[in-house]
Amino acid sequence: MYYHDKRLQYPVTVSEPDPAFARALQQAIGGVEGEIRVCMQYFFQAWGNRAPTTKYRDMLLHTATEEIGHIEMLATAVALNLEKAPSHLQEEGVKDSIVGAVMGGENPRHQIEGVIHKNLLSAGMAAMPMDSDGVPFNMSHIYASGNVAADMYCNVAAESTGRVLAVRLFNMAHDEGMKKMLHYMIARDTMHQQQWLAVIEELGAETGNLPIPNSFPQSQEDNENNYNFYATAADGSVPEGRWTNGPSIDGRGEFTVFQNKPLGEEPVLGAARPESGAQAAQIGEAPQTLDSNR
Amino acid sequence: MYYHDKRLQYPVTVSEPDPAFARALQQAIGGVEGEIRVCMQYFFQAWGNRAPTTKYRDMLLHTATEEIGHIEMLATAVALNLEKAPSHLQEEGVKDSIVGAVMGGENPRHQIEGVIHKNLLSAGMAAMPMDSDGVPFNMSHIYASGNVAADMYCNVAAESTGRVLAVRLFNMAHDEGMKKMLHYMIARDTMHQQQWLAVIEELGAETGNLPIPNSFPQSQEDNENNYNFYATAADGSVPEGRWTNGPSIDGRGEFTVFQNKPLGEEPVLGAARPESGAQAAQIGEAPQTLDSNR
Amino acid sequence: MYYHDKRLQYPVTVSEPDPAFARALQQAIGGVEGEIRVCMQYFFQAWGNRAPTTKYRDMLLHTATEEIGHIEMLATAVALNLEKAPSHLQEEGVKDSIVGAVMGGENPRHQIEGVIHKNLLSAGMAAMPMDSDGVPFNMSHIYASGNVAADMYCNVAAESTGRVLAVRLFNMAHDEGMKKMLHYMIARDTMHQQQWLAVIEELGAETGNLPIPNSFPQSQEDNENNYNFYATAADGSVPEGRWTNGPSIDGRGEFTVFQNKPLGEEPVLGAARPESGAQAAQIGEAPQTLDSNR
Amino acid sequence: MYYHDKRLQYPVTVSEPDPAFARALQQAIGGVEGEIRVCMQYFFQAWGNRAPTTKYRDMLLHTATEEIGHIEMLATAVALNLEKAPSHLQEEGVKDSIVGAVMGGENPRHQIEGVIHKNLLSAGMAAMPMDSDGVPFNMSHIYASGNVAADMYCNVAAESTGRVLAVRLFNMAHDEGMKKMLHYMIARDTMHQQQWLAVIEELGAETGNLPIPNSFPQSQEDNENNYNFYATAADGSVPEGRWTNGPSIDGRGEFTVFQNKPLGEEPVLGAARPESGAQAAQIGEAPQTLDSNR
Amino acid sequence: MYYHDKRLQYPVTVSEPDPAFARALQQAIGGVEGEIRVCMQYFFQAWGNRAPTTKYRDMLLHTATEEIGHIEMLATAVALNLEKAPSHLQEEGVKDSIVGAVMGGENPRHQIEGVIHKNLLSAGMAAMPMDSDGVPFNMSHIYASGNVAADMYCNVAAESTGRVLAVRLFNMAHDEGMKKMLHYMIARDTMHQQQWLAVIEELGAETGNLPIPNSFPQSQEDNENNYNFYATAADGSVPEGRWTNGPSIDGRGEFTVFQNKPLGEEPVLGAARPESGAQAAQIGEAPQTLDSNR
Amino acid sequence: MYYHDKRLQYPVTVSEPDPAFARALQQAIGGVEGEIRVCMQYFFQAWGNRAPTTKYRDMLLHTATEEIGHIEMLATAVALNLEKAPSHLQEEGVKDSIVGAVMGGENPRHQIEGVIHKNLLSAGMAAMPMDSDGVPFNMSHIYASGNVAADMYCNVAAESTGRVLAVRLFNMAHDEGMKKMLHYMIARDTMHQQQWLAVIEELGAETGNLPIPNSFPQSQEDNENNYNFYATAADGSVPEGRWTNGPSIDGRGEFTVFQNKPLGEEPVLGAARPESGAQAAQIGEAPQTLDSNR
Repeated sequence: MYYHDKRLQYPVTVSEPDPAFARALQQAIGGVEGEIRVCMQYFFQAWGNRAPTTKYRDMLLHTATEEIGHIEMLATAVALNLEKAPSHLQEEGVKDSIVGAVMGGENPRHQIEGVIHKNLLSAGMAAMPMDSDGVPFNMSHIYASGNVAADMYCNVAAESTGRVLAVRLFNMAHDEGMKKMLHYMIARDTMHQQQWLAVIEELGAETGNLPIPNSFPQSQEDNENNYNFYATAADGSVPEGRWTNGPSIDGRGEFTVFQNKPLGEEPVLGAARPESGAQAAQIGEAPQTLDSNR
Repeated sequence: MYYHDKRLQYPVTVSEPDPAFARALQQAIGGVEGEIRVCMQYFFQAWGNRAPTTKYRDMLLHTATEEIGHIEMLATAVALNLEKAPSHLQEEGVKDSIVGAVMGGENPRHQIEGVIHKNLLSAGMAAMPMDSDGVPFNMSHIYASGNVAADMYCNVAAESTGRVLAVRLFNMAHDEGMKKMLHYMIARDTMHQQQWLAVIEELGAETGNLPIPNSFPQSQEDNENNYNFYATAADGSVPEGRWTNGPSIDGRGEFTVFQNKPLGEEPVLGAARPESGAQAAQIGEAPQTLDSNR
Repeated sequence: MYYHDKRLQYPVTVSEPDPAFARALQQAIGGVEGEIRVCMQYFFQAWGNRAPTTKYRDMLLHTATEEIGHIEMLATAVALNLEKAPSHLQEEGVKDSIVGAVMGGENPRHQIEGVIHKNLLSAGMAAMPMDSDGVPFNMSHIYASGNVAADMYCNVAAESTGRVLAVRLFNMAHDEGMKKMLHYMIARDTMHQQQWLAVIEELGAETGNLPIPNSFPQSQEDNENNYNFYATAADGSVPEGRWTNGPSIDGRGEFTVFQNKPLGEEPVLGAARPESGAQAAQIGEAPQTLDSNR
Repeated sequence: MYYHDKRLQYPVTVSEPDPAFARALQQAIGGVEGEIRVCMQYFFQAWGNRAPTTKYRDMLLHTATEEIGHIEMLATAVALNLEKAPSHLQEEGVKDSIVGAVMGGENPRHQIEGVIHKNLLSAGMAAMPMDSDGVPFNMSHIYASGNVAADMYCNVAAESTGRVLAVRLFNMAHDEGMKKMLHYMIARDTMHQQQWLAVIEELGAETGNLPIPNSFPQSQEDNENNYNFYATAADGSVPEGRWTNGPSIDGRGEFTVFQNKPLGEEPVLGAARPESGAQAAQIGEAPQTLDSNR
Repeated sequence: MYYHDKRLQYPVTVSEPDPAFARALQQAIGGVEGEIRVCMQYFFQAWGNRAPTTKYRDMLLHTATEEIGHIEMLATAVALNLEKAPSHLQEEGVKDSIVGAVMGGENPRHQIEGVIHKNLLSAGMAAMPMDSDGVPFNMSHIYASGNVAADMYCNVAAESTGRVLAVRLFNMAHDEGMKKMLHYMIARDTMHQQQWLAVIEELGAETGNLPIPNSFPQSQEDNENNYNFYATAADGSVPEGRWTNGPSIDGRGEFTVFQNKPLGEEPVLGAARPESGAQAAQIGEAPQTLDSNR
Repeated sequence: MYYHDKRLQYPVTVSEPDPAFARALQQAIGGVEGEIRVCMQYFFQAWGNRAPTTKYRDMLLHTATEEIGHIEMLATAVALNLEKAPSHLQEEGVKDSIVGAVMGGENPRHQIEGVIHKNLLSAGMAAMPMDSDGVPFNMSHIYASGNVAADMYCNVAAESTGRVLAVRLFNMAHDEGMKKMLHYMIARDTMHQQQWLAVIEELGAETGNLPIPNSFPQSQEDNENNYNFYATAADGSVPEGRWTNGPSIDGRGEFTVFQNKPLGEEPVLGAARPESGAQAAQIGEAPQTLDSNR
């Protein structure tokens, strides 16, 4: 179960509100590489964790809980960027702000509306659980496979794309408060990349974990096709690299190259079945007519 | 551009059609860990690849093209499992099959319908680009971030969850043809896990790539919060592990532990603005009435 | 069954077409608080209504039918705002309009495209069943629970957020025709808020309907935890209000405060099962190797 | 920011695992009336709350935080129902369980697969953020309008449909542990219905809050159409009720009945524009031909 | 605007309720080939119709209005199939029905739950706007392009897949009332296929309408690649047919065959830009380190 | 299975990059009328094709394979429009480009961000599988019904809306390279419209294929309601046209007009069942109270 503190994890201030930047920040809230995703991903991985110990469940709960605070920071940042926000976050003098103009029916409406529609119309100048194009977050992006190593790579992937996004937002930001908030979040993403890779190392690193799942007897997979790069260029060219020769990353094989070609035959499904709703020609019959039916 | 061969990548045969297994196979077609995902992910990573050379674009095209053939194999397998399919894939004797009964209005309808509804009703006994619960694949799962290391971890994640799924399907299968098809696909997933990790190794391994993106000056991130594990338990307990002490995975720091606490203040957004559609109490006004308006 | 009249429910005119406002209006068509939602929600509540009388089914049909006309008005308003529309709604002189410029390849393209892409590209200057960010309406927002009181609160919620949106659009509008249309729709939302609350009153108001569903024997719920506010602040602070003391709204209890703490234990799911696709470490085994398999 | 305790909010035990019931419980996790929805809804309402005081922001945080613990309880319940779970939640003797049969390739596979596919295939016998049909939760269901009264009715609606669902699950449950867990959750839903209505009462009840938003001058809405029930039956019949006569719920008007008829005209959009991608007949031109183009 | 009659378009009776058939019927309500789709598609095509006359707008309104009644019939059929419904649709004797067992906690629960979960849990034994797998209808399926000929082909497509579905449901049905309802709906689909093709004929048939849009000067398209079939087989084989030789369907060209090959070059996007969040290797730089930053 | 050539199907060049046009092109990639849709639609139709011969499966594979190359061309065009791209596609001088300004934190940020957010933030200046409003493509748009004639009309519809879109993009384009690429794609759409209609002609044209499916005995449909136009106007007016009289398009009937009226009765579902989660009033009982329960 959970507790809260109404103070923020880290200071969030905005000197010069920027509605367009608010929209960009939405990507870090409800984008597929955003904070709702990692928060919920770590929670579901924790809650479904099956292992001889509860160690990883426990550790995941620590970080999932941390991530709620990140969503909170970003939601606060979006709200502040949608208004004229003076020091101490108290509102004053909004009349002359650019967003005030939008809500009050004044002039520079057109270019703003394209940027922040739904945050104004639907949420009244607040953050929403959606990305920078207004697409709501879809929970199918919560990867929790029941395999801890697969999950850790999913987490590294999430924190890598997450830090890439945070860096882009940092480069785009012009407000000092926003840059400071993001320099903190970038740091946390650095740690979280490390953290999930540390689990993989603890579990035996690449040689101990690969191929994932490592509980399947590898002798039962096709041993002629598990360490060869498939070249599919029509002209037979091959992109040479670490993946075309030398020992495999797990140390269990040698990389080779296979010029791809069909190993199977053309599939033949045969005629459609009567009463299956196909056309008569698919069944091999003449069309039904009003006459033929009588 | 692209060419096709109407023969299959690898043989796909079904001796004993099993509609329930057909539905399970759908997860490998249109599930988030399925083949449409990796196919399209590698294509979009290739088409958007920016680098001094076209080497990685090229290599990605090889494997993306290979994956189309995997979707094709699985779609064929679904179709075959939805019917009574004799040898050489030619249809005969379907009248007495279990699916024939469904389409023809005969008896064991109830338990089957729960399993394979949409494949029959909407596709006429064929595969669809959806998962095992009938949820259509959503292209937001195509991760292509513009950062090659982040993308490679996304690919390892995809092939790891993909091989986990293939192993589960293998364990669930009872038809020899299906087991053989899956033992091939499991092998290809083994190779693809290796392949993307080989790219990371070629690019400098963990020390050379982390933190991702490695083009951002790390001095600009918060250097007090980039290698410390945040402990968020209310009782102050800490899940000790590789992530709480010792050198970081990238070799640039030392893991430590931070008992989490708020570093910011309670955010205060202040009163809502007039004309913003809020309640009068939020604005600090009395409610508008019919009288007050006149 | 249904009939139509090709005339509009209420006049819809636009003197000065405004493509950005067209996009904003889309929120009232296909937003989650828009008219497609209430229309379909009332229809499905009506069609599935189970009660000793058909009275509520009947009443819901009246209002659902009314709402079709609201979608129609808004769709017309969007179309008119996407063109240069003279009096009597007949088209003339479009050559010099701002949208004409977009479709004809002339100058002020950039700022417009950001606002109204899909309405032009996909619909040819017409309304679409999507929100102001171009996200298509998803029918999961049709709440029809089979419980008439729950449904009525869903309807009050829908008409409340709907009227909030209509007011925001009214404040944003500058065209007299649009203001007039919206002042009508705001009025209908007023009535519909009243109407659903009138049903609740007729059914016994809060004391007669709560807790919903009121057909479940309340003695079977946990009577130590049904009228106490859970305080979850780590510092033990409590937000005092109507909900922390005094009689409950349904008159069946007294509000109290509970400082939240765990009442259960740490859950232990135990080791993963062999053949479940987990990592060997989760199962408590050594990893499978090529050697061990042979 | 947030803290966690690894113990559960309330005991969750399962004596007789039931995979079908696990799937039903998914509706309470990721259904539109489930716990992810209320948790995230209260968080976003809190984080975007604009008011003269932070009182409601604060209170919303308390309950949002409580709801995380409810998702956790349900996720644990799903995991336990997917296995043979002896006392103290420790796993043993799974070999002979019905789910063990599924994962191990044994017999009663067919009827089970229809019920719990994705929980096994994709999550390895764990909960997922989806509903009972496997549809992932979509964050567009987080209603946070920026209007506190509208939000409170959204919350009452959510807790009403939520308690209806919990009652149905309680009636469907046969395991004592599950019944106990649900009798607790039903009680919390009772309180939460009360709690949001208490806010409405504190803010002035129906007469003080309606119509929502109450900050819009009601004199500016169409005062001939804001308290009349629109009858749309072709035969002119009217469903009499509390909504057709007597004082309105807000005390500002009298209910009347209006036999609906068009108040506007047939809209005429006129011919399509050249270069708009319409058919020639829509533009009033002859079709373009290869000849005419030369 | 619109009127309703509370009687159904056509009789809907169910002698022997069948919950599995109810679920199948959902495909005809909220499936992509279902009635919500055609209803809303015709409405949006009507409301956005631009043409010299309102004739097609008018005609579309007639049929869109008819389709509301079809959704209503199907929703009623679903509700009736979810219960024990005696003659005259009045409920009695539900205690011993199969669905009664589900809701009341009795025995044959397992196999039913897999079939009808959400209709019971979420809607209380009623229809929902979703397909037979419980996936909610998504309004992106409303095709209304602004080109009347394109729209008519979209409509033919919708009514063709719709009639295919209705035929499959007819073949699956065993209740006489359901067969009668479906034999009516199949007939209406027959008419609607005719109706949209009649529009195309009235507008000039294939030679008068093709290529769509026929308002684009065909001389401006690539006249070497507009009537040739692209053969993409790696072995150079060609699937001969009506499309490989002879006059084109629009009478403006001759079909030929082109052995596909690249007409362009390998695209080279070049190095990534500094500050774009790419890896250093993509930019052509050395990785940033803690040292290099200082 | 499949092969690739790293060269493009047709030249793609951009002299003057235009980020807004890049966003518009996204509609042709991931819009419902875009290239991912037709590509995947033809593949799934091919893979599931049931017929006495593999002729149509084969032909569909040719064109599906061609379409991959179209997605590739468009993805390349989007990437080029997001940067300053000199001749031969090699990058130089990006510093002064408009997009460079965006990524580098310079001035004209606001108007650009509204247009291309996610392509920059999430993909690093590359194409994504989404439409021009950033909505990801949803695979439910892959229509493959198992009926070849229905599928062909779906394909004609897809290529008709596709060519309408391509024409709009052509009219909007100002770069010669983009116009040339589009004039090629428009030509291919012309051919593909022809191609699918050629299949219909080969199968017997309208008289031989209608009504679809033509394998259902037409005598079993309601022969009084299969060739009559339903007029639903409340005033009894009829939109006369080819569809109101004369022979039907399939030559099997005569068009007539039916003034629509209810042929069924008001449906009566009766009281809700106890324990179904309905309100007591729906069941016909008094509400449960704390007292009554004890």
